[in-house]
Amino acid sequence: MTKRNAFYAQSGGVTAVINATACGLIETARHRAGQIDTVFAGHNGILGALHEELIDTSQESARTIAALRHTPAGAFGSARYKLKGLQENRAEYERLFKVFDAHNIGYFFYNGGGDSQDTTHKVAQLGEQLGYPITCIGIPKTVDNDLPGTDSCPGFGSVAKYIAVSTREAGLDVASMAKTSTKVFILETMGRHAGWIAAAAGLAQELPGEPPHLILLPEIPFDRERFLSRVEQTVQELGYCVVVASEGTRNADGAFLADQGSGKDAFGHTQLGGVAPVIARLINDTLGYKYHYAIADYLQRAARHIASRTDVEQAYAVGQAAVEFALAGKNAIMLTITRLSDDPYRWQVGEARLAEVANVERKLPAEYISEDGLHITAQCRRYLSPLIAGEDYPPYENGLPSYARLRRCMVDKKLPRFEGN
Amino acid sequence: MTKRNAFYAQSGGVTAVINATACGLIETARHRAGQIDTVFAGHNGILGALHEELIDTSQESARTIAALRHTPAGAFGSARYKLKGLQENRAEYERLFKVFDAHNIGYFFYNGGGDSQDTTHKVAQLGEQLGYPITCIGIPKTVDNDLPGTDSCPGFGSVAKYIAVSTREAGLDVASMAKTSTKVFILETMGRHAGWIAAAAGLAQELPGEPPHLILLPEIPFDRERFLSRVEQTVQELGYCVVVASEGTRNADGAFLADQGSGKDAFGHTQLGGVAPVIARLINDTLGYKYHYAIADYLQRAARHIASRTDVEQAYAVGQAAVEFALAGKNAIMLTITRLSDDPYRWQVGEARLAEVANVERKLPAEYISEDGLHITAQCRRYLSPLIAGEDYPPYENGLPSYARLRRCMVDKKLPRFEGN
Repeated sequence: MTKRNAFYAQSGGVTAVINATACGLIETARHRAGQIDTVFAGHNGILGALHEELIDTSQESARTIAALRHTPAGAFGSARYKLKGLQENRAEYERLFKVFDAHNIGYFFYNGGGDSQDTTHKVAQLGEQLGYPITCIGIPKTVDNDLPGTDSCPGFGSVAKYIAVSTREAGLDVASMAKTSTKVFILETMGRHAGWIAAAAGLAQELPGEPPHLILLPEIPFDRERFLSRVEQTVQELGYCVVVASEGTRNADGAFLADQGSGKDAFGHTQLGGVAPVIARLINDTLGYKYHYAIADYLQRAARHIASRTDVEQAYAVGQAAVEFALAGKNAIMLTITRLSDDPYRWQVGEARLAEVANVERKLPAEYISEDGLHITAQCRRYLSPLIAGEDYPPYENGLPSYARLRRCMVDKKLPRFEGN
Repeated sequence: MTKRNAFYAQSGGVTAVINATACGLIETARHRAGQIDTVFAGHNGILGALHEELIDTSQESARTIAALRHTPAGAFGSARYKLKGLQENRAEYERLFKVFDAHNIGYFFYNGGGDSQDTTHKVAQLGEQLGYPITCIGIPKTVDNDLPGTDSCPGFGSVAKYIAVSTREAGLDVASMAKTSTKVFILETMGRHAGWIAAAAGLAQELPGEPPHLILLPEIPFDRERFLSRVEQTVQELGYCVVVASEGTRNADGAFLADQGSGKDAFGHTQLGGVAPVIARLINDTLGYKYHYAIADYLQRAARHIASRTDVEQAYAVGQAAVEFALAGKNAIMLTITRLSDDPYRWQVGEARLAEVANVERKLPAEYISEDGLHITAQCRRYLSPLIAGEDYPPYENGLPSYARLRRCMVDKKLPRFEGN
């Protein structure tokens, strides 16, 4: 059989370690050069396939590819672009196959969240229908940790570590100033529908009374009175109160506290941000406490400087496994992280059928949330703790992390322009 | 001469390295135990002296004191509390001396910003008037880098590094998503009246076109039209735009863009926060770009996990020098950092007369700001670059930085309760 090329694309919100996955995938493909030809990376994710904008990764030096392991964000460009259903927009899928065919692409590696697993599944189905031989492997990536079928998602451990570290640090700051200054500090985290990131802040608390004191999760409807009374009680007892609030915190009627009403993104998700000021104002209006708040926003998911070593290793491993599983004949699967034990933490790469993981969101289970709904349980700690373990510092130059700069050489186009989106 | 005790207090907003100063001071005092007795730390800063709440640092183990070097925030409690003028409130100053006398305190080490240097100066003056022998040393500390007489201020280098690193990381994130998502990202930094922190973000840009693209400084009146046209031009050229905005960004009439109108702090400063959403909305309303913003708030000044090694060393050195200069007979001085050369960067601890540094704010000089007012110059880079050089990672346990936990044993009170503030 002639060697075939691979297509790799990054999809959706980027993470501190998605490039570590790219690194694992490309390095492994290079080691397996006898069986797999060039890895073409989609420029701006799947759009790169639609528009035949393929980055030739063979033009990047081994050193640059190695540096991807410690470089945050999406080195090839990611995209929030969801392919519509096969019925609705068959043209897009057919275009993909034209591009694959023009460039002898026999492997489709798609690195993203739930929507991307759905796309990978559809590509696999259509390949079969069209009789086009293509191996489709979904590679998990999401800071939200909301993919089913995997114990954890590469990208989550690092944002979890960043939020836990930041909560501990800012908590010390507030504690030391509370006598004459800020009484309530609120840290807003990402996590639209699942509270995993906010929950990770709970790891910062080692002894009773340490921050964070209250965690607001999307899974638990916001109970104004209960929350305010807990804030007041905490300030009275400790002199201050640190709150970690997920951007997805909602009222009992399901409405986001922070809903900006400013439209939706390409996946139909409401654009959020700003629950912290809403809560700060509520506290100030009712309890009168001086407050401060931080909105970590992209800082949290780009924070490669404080990435979790576990997360980096898992991100690399799923990239590596994508090639190895594909060459071993696997198809239509998403790679997963299987936990073998909590302590010592042991894990391996496993697989799940795409059909089973596409479009399913995994929320924080009830047993991970304390009875009052405002903190995490010991069981949750056991789950989260190994995911933030270990540091994996990038190299520094002149006081700043030295991140990969790619050449991004484009493969010559062979097809007419795509007239779709 | 009998040995006398020392009083040490932390004042104002805390930093990632103010405890490194405490570490340097206490360790040096322990080494000089033949000449100086116990260091008493004010609980919650100067309030600890007024209320005779003195923490006996001799009760902390050598290991705990050593751990202060890598622990952020104010381990003894800091305070935003400014002593009034000698005429206005002589009672407070006289109370200080009663407490000093009751506890045989002969050294006053005050670790803070401009207001604290003013207090240190007044204590020195009154000591002379009262004939109470006391050695007064001001130790610089401020993330704002706005103290005169010193080349830089301990605390600034670390926040500068945090902001530069975060800008570089978030910049990569935005660049990789811009095709289908956020076009403009705004990072709000601290810096009420001086733009040093926002300026430090400029270091993240190594090659032309790299983020940050625009920096808003308090020193330059906000020019709406010019700013918007530069944002638009940047998005058209590069596909995205990263803006770093100081919380102190103001209009030509001097009004803060973010003014919450929510009262003033104990030093009479307006409480700020929230310039990022103001700018984001302006951009969205006029140019229609999708935006995101981060407000780093306390995260930036507490971020010991990414402290500058230079900053940690300087913070330790001024603590050490406080004891050594005092024992050498110096009085009524503020310790300073003297720069001997830019490259290689060489520095030493120097001194300035308190009379010359109290209540003077050092702003970003005109030659550090680019001609268009929206970036920094090469000269500014030469100044800033060594201040963020080097890393100084804290030890980690279970994935989180292991910070000092103090016993905080209080010295027995000898005086009646203070009826003042």
